[in-house]
Amino acid sequence: MKQYSAEFLGTFWLVLGGCGSAVLAAAFPQVGIGLHGVALAFGLTVLTMAFAIGHISGCHLNPAVSVGLWAGGRFPASKLAPYIVAQVLGGIVAGGVLYVIASGAPGFDVSKGFASNGYGAHSPGGYSLLAGLVSEVVMTMFFLVIILVVTDKRTPAGFAPIAIGFALTLIHLISIPVTNTSVNPARSTGVAVYVGGWAVAQLWLFWFAPIVGALLGAVTYRAIASEDS
Amino acid sequence: MKQYSAEFLGTFWLVLGGCGSAVLAAAFPQVGIGLHGVALAFGLTVLTMAFAIGHISGCHLNPAVSVGLWAGGRFPASKLAPYIVAQVLGGIVAGGVLYVIASGAPGFDVSKGFASNGYGAHSPGGYSLLAGLVSEVVMTMFFLVIILVVTDKRTPAGFAPIAIGFALTLIHLISIPVTNTSVNPARSTGVAVYVGGWAVAQLWLFWFAPIVGALLGAVTYRAIASEDS
Amino acid sequence: MKQYSAEFLGTFWLVLGGCGSAVLAAAFPQVGIGLHGVALAFGLTVLTMAFAIGHISGCHLNPAVSVGLWAGGRFPASKLAPYIVAQVLGGIVAGGVLYVIASGAPGFDVSKGFASNGYGAHSPGGYSLLAGLVSEVVMTMFFLVIILVVTDKRTPAGFAPIAIGFALTLIHLISIPVTNTSVNPARSTGVAVYVGGWAVAQLWLFWFAPIVGALLGAVTYRAIASEDS
Amino acid sequence: MKQYSAEFLGTFWLVLGGCGSAVLAAAFPQVGIGLHGVALAFGLTVLTMAFAIGHISGCHLNPAVSVGLWAGGRFPASKLAPYIVAQVLGGIVAGGVLYVIASGAPGFDVSKGFASNGYGAHSPGGYSLLAGLVSEVVMTMFFLVIILVVTDKRTPAGFAPIAIGFALTLIHLISIPVTNTSVNPARSTGVAVYVGGWAVAQLWLFWFAPIVGALLGAVTYRAIASEDS
Repeated sequence: MKQYSAEFLGTFWLVLGGCGSAVLAAAFPQVGIGLHGVALAFGLTVLTMAFAIGHISGCHLNPAVSVGLWAGGRFPASKLAPYIVAQVLGGIVAGGVLYVIASGAPGFDVSKGFASNGYGAHSPGGYSLLAGLVSEVVMTMFFLVIILVVTDKRTPAGFAPIAIGFALTLIHLISIPVTNTSVNPARSTGVAVYVGGWAVAQLWLFWFAPIVGALLGAVTYRAIASEDS
Repeated sequence: MKQYSAEFLGTFWLVLGGCGSAVLAAAFPQVGIGLHGVALAFGLTVLTMAFAIGHISGCHLNPAVSVGLWAGGRFPASKLAPYIVAQVLGGIVAGGVLYVIASGAPGFDVSKGFASNGYGAHSPGGYSLLAGLVSEVVMTMFFLVIILVVTDKRTPAGFAPIAIGFALTLIHLISIPVTNTSVNPARSTGVAVYVGGWAVAQLWLFWFAPIVGALLGAVTYRAIASEDS
Repeated sequence: MKQYSAEFLGTFWLVLGGCGSAVLAAAFPQVGIGLHGVALAFGLTVLTMAFAIGHISGCHLNPAVSVGLWAGGRFPASKLAPYIVAQVLGGIVAGGVLYVIASGAPGFDVSKGFASNGYGAHSPGGYSLLAGLVSEVVMTMFFLVIILVVTDKRTPAGFAPIAIGFALTLIHLISIPVTNTSVNPARSTGVAVYVGGWAVAQLWLFWFAPIVGALLGAVTYRAIASEDS
Repeated sequence: MKQYSAEFLGTFWLVLGGCGSAVLAAAFPQVGIGLHGVALAFGLTVLTMAFAIGHISGCHLNPAVSVGLWAGGRFPASKLAPYIVAQVLGGIVAGGVLYVIASGAPGFDVSKGFASNGYGAHSPGGYSLLAGLVSEVVMTMFFLVIILVVTDKRTPAGFAPIAIGFALTLIHLISIPVTNTSVNPARSTGVAVYVGGWAVAQLWLFWFAPIVGALLGAVTYRAIASEDS
């Protein structure tokens, strides 16, 4: 139960911090943090939580990560469902808290996107479904390779949170214009439910692509980077 | 006495560095550091001081952190008052030094805010009291969970300053537009006293909310993340 | 074979991440990540990959690094050719994937540069061949000195990826305006082949200068910084 | 002799990297790195060099640091003069290389400042001599406290370069608008000699204030933070 609480709490922090920085601060007039600040925020949610709850639940905070760790032989299938439920709930509650904060300012309009992920007309830069699919698959694949290696026994203790957090920052530096960057179905779901309409209709891609990418990452890890390979 | 001196010095650095970057550099024409640079500066004041004085005083630099560590069973009640006095004094002296520097440029006007925290009409983005309250409580709560875990015996030596410093950076990346981000009553007080008026009148929120958040963080830590839980 | 796969994969990530952030996100309207974000992205590709594949292949990801490590007495001549082939292939495939993603948005035009390196009329800031030559040689020279020291036995385990990754970030913070920053022939080749014309015609400089710089770095290392010197 | 070479090389890197990023990239149209990028660059020159040459010379790269370490009882007086000479020479040669690169672009004009430090009419934000003096003294004082603690035996190996590098980044985030940030007489001298006139005439402050600050830092360290205090 403590593991599920930790995943709930951690995913709450990821969505509140990452999507919160995007909604509240990215485009603040003149001194906004920009996509660069949002990328840093997403990475730091994971860096800080990995230090705080890594020893409790492994700090997945992401259904695709849980699936990838299972496929990499590092996480039991029996825990997949409760982990994913805890992550999605954490994301949705975070979206709610963010809604309460964001709606406290004049001019807030959830239909502007609320940091939802999208493709085509709803991609920040107008990128196609194909571009979004390729981007999400490749980004999640590399994310999982990095996670799988740095959490095995060969990385000196303490560095995994830095490597994983900055990997997520990097992924956002590259791909926010394409899909607003998901690589995490719980993060996508946590805000999309408040937007409804297109955001929910496009949600399938942000479950499908990260999970495919995570499986490819696990395969790659087993082939060239695991301790036994 | 060395502990109190260290807290004085460290909080001086936090306020001079964090509020100083905001007042002096955030909106510098064309090449200003923006909210993103201010967020980094706040975090780096804590990262650097945690390395420098962590072994002396624990490097709280923040009454809410001292209260949260006490509630988490990691700090004696008897030291709360002198720590908080040292922190507030450090913040106020830093505000004075910043005033001397900032007023050395033409056009300086302390009534523009001097990096004070505020809500409603004095929130940077016009956020309501409720939004400010929720934001400060939740941010401080997570800050304390992170601090309580990474300073217990399970985190490899040396990483705590990185985790805590970047947690503060993250908190600022999210919430500067809402309240100018406090999560620290000493930081709020250190500059508000030079502005007076609204800044002092609204100061209660930046004592109340961070301390409530810190207590919630301690409760959460004891429930799911402490070594005994 | 696993080593060559790792170099392929790692250089793929470096080019997709570094050049990808430049092409997709640097100049995004209003909230673009700027040269600063691109610099961070390049560094984080190396930081993350060094954690992920450093123990497999050494994580060179760069023909100039392989040459410099050979000249520093730390890499066998027999592996130079296959490493360089794997790196260049990884870069070119990454360029292809980036092309697929980038061309999914309206208005994409590979002839705008596609993050290619250049000098003279094709330098981002109009810098001359001489300026580009000096910049690339000096930057790569220091890059190799840093790499050679932090990967020898004296640096505590785990810190090398941080030092090397942030060295590459620093190099980009300085020199993107001059040549768009190469210091890596595989990175230059990986995107230039899609642009053709001037980008391929100027490619010689981004093989020549980084390799000269790497050799100077190895000489400097042997003279003052190696364990035996 | 190897120590002096290392100080020469390291200060070369600090001035080329820090001042280079300022001259070449800070105000690049639309995507320039801004003061924030310059602050990061200065810090990363020290972070990377501390990993590379810390074990050779201690990586001072700064006459004020050498003086402060001497005053803190950690550096022999006999080496002060040769260290300072090596640092100043490294800075001046770096200024020359930067001049060669920067002058390779149309419109370069050294009289625009070439990243020199200044006060009054030559402060970036028009700050007075008093503001500049206070800023430089306080910044260098805290810089030395941090350096003195993290390089003594209590900090886990490997973290000192991170703490010191990010301390320098923080100092620049705060104070570039005031004096363009020196805290380092060798950095100031390395570029001022190419500008001449006012830059040389104001150089006295950037020798005087950092050294006073360093001495205050050493006194503070001895009083509350040293292993014996």
